Amino acid sequence: MKYFKVSIMLIIFLGSLLIADEGMWTFDNPPVKQLKAKYGFEPNQKWLDHIRLSSVRFMDGGSGSFISSDGLVLTNHHVAVGQLQKMSSEDKNYVKTGFKAEKWENEIKCPDLEVNILVDFEDVTDEVVSVVKSDKNMAENYKAKKAKMAEIENRNKEKTGLESEVVNLYHGGEYWLYQYKKYTDVRLVFAPERSAAFFGGYNDNFTYPRYDLDFALFRVYENDKPIKCKNYLKWNSDGIKKDELVFVSGHPGSTNRLYTFSQLEFQRDCEYPYVLKFIDRKLALLKEYAKRGPEQQRKAIIYQFGLLNGLKAMQGEYNGLQDTAVTNIKKRQEHKLKDLVKSDPKLRKKYGSAWNEISKVIDLEKKRYDELFYRRISFSNLSNYALRIVRFVEEIEKPDKDRLEGYHKTDVERIKFRLFSPAPIYKDLEEINMVDLFQTVKKELGENDEFVKSLIGDRNPEEYAHKLFSDTRLDEVEFRKKLINGGKEAVQKCNDPLILLAKRIDPIMRKDRKWRKENISSKLNFASEKIAKARFEIYGKNIYPDATFSLRLSYGTVKGYEMNGTIAPCFTTLYGLYDRAISFKGDEDYFIPEKFWQKEDKLDLSTPVNFVSTCDIIGGNSGSPVVNRDGEIVGLIFDGNIESLTGGFVYDIEKSRAVAVHIGYITEALDKLYDADFILDEIGVERGE
Amino acid sequence: MKYFKVSIMLIIFLGSLLIADEGMWTFDNPPVKQLKAKYGFEPNQKWLDHIRLSSVRFMDGGSGSFISSDGLVLTNHHVAVGQLQKMSSEDKNYVKTGFKAEKWENEIKCPDLEVNILVDFEDVTDEVVSVVKSDKNMAENYKAKKAKMAEIENRNKEKTGLESEVVNLYHGGEYWLYQYKKYTDVRLVFAPERSAAFFGGYNDNFTYPRYDLDFALFRVYENDKPIKCKNYLKWNSDGIKKDELVFVSGHPGSTNRLYTFSQLEFQRDCEYPYVLKFIDRKLALLKEYAKRGPEQQRKAIIYQFGLLNGLKAMQGEYNGLQDTAVTNIKKRQEHKLKDLVKSDPKLRKKYGSAWNEISKVIDLEKKRYDELFYRRISFSNLSNYALRIVRFVEEIEKPDKDRLEGYHKTDVERIKFRLFSPAPIYKDLEEINMVDLFQTVKKELGENDEFVKSLIGDRNPEEYAHKLFSDTRLDEVEFRKKLINGGKEAVQKCNDPLILLAKRIDPIMRKDRKWRKENISSKLNFASEKIAKARFEIYGKNIYPDATFSLRLSYGTVKGYEMNGTIAPCFTTLYGLYDRAISFKGDEDYFIPEKFWQKEDKLDLSTPVNFVSTCDIIGGNSGSPVVNRDGEIVGLIFDGNIESLTGGFVYDIEKSRAVAVHIGYITEALDKLYDADFILDEIGVERGE
Repeated sequence: MKYFKVSIMLIIFLGSLLIADEGMWTFDNPPVKQLKAKYGFEPNQKWLDHIRLSSVRFMDGGSGSFISSDGLVLTNHHVAVGQLQKMSSEDKNYVKTGFKAEKWENEIKCPDLEVNILVDFEDVTDEVVSVVKSDKNMAENYKAKKAKMAEIENRNKEKTGLESEVVNLYHGGEYWLYQYKKYTDVRLVFAPERSAAFFGGYNDNFTYPRYDLDFALFRVYENDKPIKCKNYLKWNSDGIKKDELVFVSGHPGSTNRLYTFSQLEFQRDCEYPYVLKFIDRKLALLKEYAKRGPEQQRKAIIYQFGLLNGLKAMQGEYNGLQDTAVTNIKKRQEHKLKDLVKSDPKLRKKYGSAWNEISKVIDLEKKRYDELFYRRISFSNLSNYALRIVRFVEEIEKPDKDRLEGYHKTDVERIKFRLFSPAPIYKDLEEINMVDLFQTVKKELGENDEFVKSLIGDRNPEEYAHKLFSDTRLDEVEFRKKLINGGKEAVQKCNDPLILLAKRIDPIMRKDRKWRKENISSKLNFASEKIAKARFEIYGKNIYPDATFSLRLSYGTVKGYEMNGTIAPCFTTLYGLYDRAISFKGDEDYFIPEKFWQKEDKLDLSTPVNFVSTCDIIGGNSGSPVVNRDGEIVGLIFDGNIESLTGGFVYDIEKSRAVAVHIGYITEALDKLYDADFILDEIGVERGE
Repeated sequence: MKYFKVSIMLIIFLGSLLIADEGMWTFDNPPVKQLKAKYGFEPNQKWLDHIRLSSVRFMDGGSGSFISSDGLVLTNHHVAVGQLQKMSSEDKNYVKTGFKAEKWENEIKCPDLEVNILVDFEDVTDEVVSVVKSDKNMAENYKAKKAKMAEIENRNKEKTGLESEVVNLYHGGEYWLYQYKKYTDVRLVFAPERSAAFFGGYNDNFTYPRYDLDFALFRVYENDKPIKCKNYLKWNSDGIKKDELVFVSGHPGSTNRLYTFSQLEFQRDCEYPYVLKFIDRKLALLKEYAKRGPEQQRKAIIYQFGLLNGLKAMQGEYNGLQDTAVTNIKKRQEHKLKDLVKSDPKLRKKYGSAWNEISKVIDLEKKRYDELFYRRISFSNLSNYALRIVRFVEEIEKPDKDRLEGYHKTDVERIKFRLFSPAPIYKDLEEINMVDLFQTVKKELGENDEFVKSLIGDRNPEEYAHKLFSDTRLDEVEFRKKLINGGKEAVQKCNDPLILLAKRIDPIMRKDRKWRKENISSKLNFASEKIAKARFEIYGKNIYPDATFSLRLSYGTVKGYEMNGTIAPCFTTLYGLYDRAISFKGDEDYFIPEKFWQKEDKLDLSTPVNFVSTCDIIGGNSGSPVVNRDGEIVGLIFDGNIESLTGGFVYDIEKSRAVAVHIGYITEALDKLYDADFILDEIGVERGE
């Protein structure tokens, strides 16, 4: 009778999976069954390939898509804003003023932007797992798997020339080799003013109804010429209707939906409180810094954006972790899976112990959490450069399999690209943060901590930080190049104060890293793999893996939701933008560029501005295209609503919504506000006279 | 040391009273101290008198204010809508089309609208309480007090000719004689289309941001001529600013903020579940009825409005009663008061037992709640007429002091005014409701209940109800008049089926009423009075009484609030109306009248539409003027936000907001949408050419 019970529960569970628009699906396992059952739509391989090859990964941490045969890429302004800031100076503030190139020659090269296109993928689970000899030594097995993954990546890169990445899916359930075409010559074509893109500021961030023009355009170059794209998305300014099926193809960064309940408790009790406290401190510092003058304000803005954005997102997640209504959903899911495993003797024997194993690892991590957290925090680009250089010259001499993660052969190119970035460095701001870092770490870990001793010792924090940033030459690209090229010897001889600091603390950080690998990561990997296998045996591949900043397909419908005692509409209009701008007159978060007032009468105010869908997304999906059944681009993901902030560990179709810029708004703005005919012509928008 | 402790707690408590914009204050005890402390504003007696004498009570259950010397009254469309419906027929649907009189001769007399102006008030506590001889017989004392109240009312009415009402404030803490000038010739001057007034329908009801033109204009007549007003509010279309002090003068219907916790539990566990279930049934019936055709839809709409409005309000209150975050506030307040009483031997002796006494009464009421609820429900106007007639002819023959409440000498005029209303009666709808009433009561109380036996017995519900409404002549005003004028004898002889039914059930209902008075009301009155006195001894008159549909003054500031992860603005604009209308295109709750589209380009879309303030209001305040320091009208209360729905028992300054129509929107609409120059001239609005 046990099997009967299992299959009944299975049907209930699968049923619910088929109904909700949940999941960030890999392109090797698209939700075809679900789409057919709920929407009568069966995407074929050609459709899937077209969407995939039109999708772009921004290594800055976002997504985008090709929208012309000349390599024009659409993404969010807030994905582009880091590069905009790096291109800006006291005289030219592209963040504030926006940018319009008019012709190819005027497009500005990004200092350090890398984009990727996923051109192929392959299941390499068997090869990775083949190195595991016995269950006994978890640390050895873990190391061997990591080495094998690096080996596969390296082998493939040599063979194909493509960026090669072995991705761990389902927490060890599968390993896939993802092959990317990589581009590092990416140029800015267009960006609106930040006040139009980020209308409503931090108040409206992660909420809806919204009115944001959160887009920017780049062009991908190779050999100093725009690339030719076979795959790009057809522009459709009028392509959404209420209740219509839409798709999102992008790169969700990270979710923990397959975490056990004890892992979520660990996040709630350790990770979130520590990080939230840290963000609060950093924001207070930035606020003080920005008060010094307009130039400091300009420099601070990009860091403030990152921190405030993160703060609101994390606060939402943290609230979710504390909300029993939310956590009970997770508890029920876990109990269901555990019951299914327990009720079958074979499954129980193979996998039954996994949850307890994870709990034990977490208990251990909790005990050392103070050290593990504060010995890793960072807030200076230059000190990060220093650490990276010190490690690089040491690792590069080792055989590939013995290197630290992140320093394998396949990583070298990317390390150098970032390390040699010509982006400006704000030494005054870095110094302030360094002082605070010294004080915080000393306070939290005590002066007798070996890391604290090496980091700061008896030195005066202010004086020492000032000396570090006055004397260092790491802000010169050429100096960094010389150290990397000079190798171990050059670094050993180097007396740059930040290099000296890095050399002092690196041994302790390596020791921590080793401890974490042997006592935490390898054991978690071992136990998580068991749970993943149990899931496969029970549910087959009717589940999707947690997000890993690799390409995923989500689907859902354009749909409002119950909110604040009433309902939120599925789209907003330009009327609403002016409504909110006037309602909050005087509040600079709600300023719109002057041209919006001057050209108001040219605009069709009924133009849809933003819209919501039930597509399942998370941070990293920013800039993802929203496409319709015909594979046309109809929207541009830029946010989730406040109710979606628990999406890291649970998806709620009733209230969770993905927020997108309507393509019609971009068209209307390019046409009537920005007179950007060169772009409209390129993407094939027909206009009246 | 006890007294020290008491006074420290007192200071803390009073402090909080002075900070929050809480309270619906009587005009004899206006919050002058609080206004001075927080806003530096001291209203003088002239200011207070002017506001009071400009305020109008709508006996239909709302508020209003004079806005011209010729008796023009501003109120909400949703306060007016009952009369609009009564003036309408299959051919002329003023609810849908709105109404504009253009000149006095065209103004339409309301079938049964009574309005009152509070011209004087006087403390009669001593006289009322003087009849209490000993604490022993609560029922006798209660009866004696009720008789004394009626006597005072009667005496005063005979002396002054004014409507006289003894109001029980602070749950027996004080009794005040309120004297009203009464008007029953009230005529409709202007009403917009319901789609403009009630834009957003039930979804947006009790929420904000809002975009409603919820106003209507009446004129008060006496001797067939418009009255001359010395006191009316000056019109100010541009009179609100963010954070500015404003006042609301109106008639909040009922609150239970001074209830004990056990009384709130009783509401949560008995009253609300019963009423909510009842409303659900009635709505289902109306929905079916409305499906029969457009005329049935027209007839149903007004009942649906009442029920859906009540449902959302009550659901919000019910949710609040179940929310421990909310109820804990009440618990803390009660504990504080109890502790203060306990800590003083004198107070304890006099008042300490009150809370237990109330709990006991409630336990008793709970046991009989099924009967007490289902034997009182009603849903037919004609059966109510029948009961009223049967009771009237009996009570009118008794000495005033022995009469049922509601049948005293001072009530006679009002009873006749309502009973002889020429308003149309929808017999087909009444019949449907009567069938359901029969079935419900039988099901809930069982066929052996004496009330059920008298009401329906073995009769077939459908057949009996059909016979009742086919054969009754109570829908004829003249027939009702004949019965009232014919007195007891005429009613005894009358074979009208609804009169026969009323005669059967009245004795049982009287018995219940008597039981309730002796076992519930008198005991609650006795105990509540103790708590009221304790409050006075401890807090003085730094508290306000619960709402009693008598005139109150609230104050607060124009202020947005945190909502849905972001902030709600303090006002909305016409842009927002169009935004929402287009966003919900196709949903008839969001239709706006055709003229809004046709005349859009004439409108200044930046005109403020609705705004929110921290003023403390509740149902009954609908139509209340919002006035500024200068006593000018700047807004028109029409709703509370969703967060304010717990206002029946607790006020929350962080999130609770009163929602008002901005006077500027009414001006703009009258001017550019409705071309109502005759009104604008009367209220003195200057316009450009």
